[in-house]
Amino acid sequence: MKIIVAKARMSAWSDAAHAQRKIVAFVPTMGYLHQGHLSLVRLARKLADRVVVSIYVNPTQFGPREDFKSYPRDLKRDLRLLRSAGVHAVFVPKNMYGNRPEVQVDPGPIQNVLCGRERPGHFRGVATIVLKFLSVVKPDVAVFGQKDAQQFVILNRMVQELDLGVKMVAGPVIREKDGLAMSSRNARLSERERSLAPSLYRGLLSVRKGFKQGRREALALLKAAAKIPAGKVEYFTAVDSQTLMPVRTLRRGTLVAAAMRLGKVRLIDNIIL
Amino acid sequence: MKIIVAKARMSAWSDAAHAQRKIVAFVPTMGYLHQGHLSLVRLARKLADRVVVSIYVNPTQFGPREDFKSYPRDLKRDLRLLRSAGVHAVFVPKNMYGNRPEVQVDPGPIQNVLCGRERPGHFRGVATIVLKFLSVVKPDVAVFGQKDAQQFVILNRMVQELDLGVKMVAGPVIREKDGLAMSSRNARLSERERSLAPSLYRGLLSVRKGFKQGRREALALLKAAAKIPAGKVEYFTAVDSQTLMPVRTLRRGTLVAAAMRLGKVRLIDNIIL
Repeated sequence: MKIIVAKARMSAWSDAAHAQRKIVAFVPTMGYLHQGHLSLVRLARKLADRVVVSIYVNPTQFGPREDFKSYPRDLKRDLRLLRSAGVHAVFVPKNMYGNRPEVQVDPGPIQNVLCGRERPGHFRGVATIVLKFLSVVKPDVAVFGQKDAQQFVILNRMVQELDLGVKMVAGPVIREKDGLAMSSRNARLSERERSLAPSLYRGLLSVRKGFKQGRREALALLKAAAKIPAGKVEYFTAVDSQTLMPVRTLRRGTLVAAAMRLGKVRLIDNIIL
Repeated sequence: MKIIVAKARMSAWSDAAHAQRKIVAFVPTMGYLHQGHLSLVRLARKLADRVVVSIYVNPTQFGPREDFKSYPRDLKRDLRLLRSAGVHAVFVPKNMYGNRPEVQVDPGPIQNVLCGRERPGHFRGVATIVLKFLSVVKPDVAVFGQKDAQQFVILNRMVQELDLGVKMVAGPVIREKDGLAMSSRNARLSERERSLAPSLYRGLLSVRKGFKQGRREALALLKAAAKIPAGKVEYFTAVDSQTLMPVRTLRRGTLVAAAMRLGKVRLIDNIIL
């Protein structure tokens, strides 16, 4: 497994792989890897001949009062996990930005719904860093987690609208035994918070249950479901999986997405009906 | 000379050239070509093995009251000129956008000075379409006209900040015998307006003259120079050539840039001291 720090070396590695007609898949991460990330790596290995994983905690996607500094980091352990997972190259840039960067990708109105309401500027930061990574890593395929549903919709739209020519793939949400969606931030939950955290998913499951029982009216079902999570619910909503606009009537394929706060930690989760 | 309409074919053409280890240069244009464009093609031929020119009047960089519809077009003549100039491929997409595009490149505060004051949204449109073209054409080098000085600064910054990995080159302003900077829009000047148009450059030359005589204080020199143009001056200013922020003291390398309106036509020009 090659560990690459410089952007130019990363691009050269990818050019060399392409010169050998290898398909390159890319899994961008912020590190502190868990089974969710590793499932994306396994998916990437199925889709490509070469797998590149990046580890970079991107400062521009954190708000001023968010957890950039306290975001968990453990590079040694991450590298060990990636080596075992059969990754071909790990890209660990020291810094992706020049002095006072000003150019950004603006994802448009879709950035302002769901998580975007609570995190102004977050998706500009995400879209911009992912565009930069795609430019440097030059993958044929990029793999993201479905847990960050809005992120995937925005990035997929960016890739289509800007003609970036990368195949975008989302891997399913990976959960703990009690249903909690895996997240690097789970490590920052207290014992009590951790025991309350699966209630977010239980809320989502109650919507699925209602849907399976034939209920289609979103409003009442969501209202009841949103009472289940044990934290401060930020949103609990059913939206069109492409536009992220709220729907009144649930259908197959409707995205039910929720976010809640437990102490200092913000948790998100979603299901697709 | 290959004429390419589909994005996928354009990318494939470029991939094939790269597979043969050819350097690809790209000259994006809005057509209605003049000697300025052809000088960029000649420059591109010096810098690369293969030259691609695009012809596309990009709607998103025109304001609602601007001249998108009346922008001059003559594809037949353009193709004849490019063939004679030894261009290898011409990319003439029918439409570069999907339905209701929302993702844009936001160039940051630098888009709001100079031409950006009169043309809100213009440089977002320019940056976005150029990013799209760079993604589709995948050139090693891209060549732009120095006449659009702010455009070049913004695009160069975009390429650096977003790690697009394209070498950016500006070709010098090409002028008519009487000094008027060549522009496709000159064709829309009435005979009288055409006779007045070179006054913009004369104003710029008076600044150069003052500078050569040892004057360094920008304000008085610019004020006098701005009285020379025979149209409605929109701006006449001396700025840092990288940041586009106004300077008080003229130096070698200072950009002196001006814009004026003559009837329905907006003319821009600049010199570097």
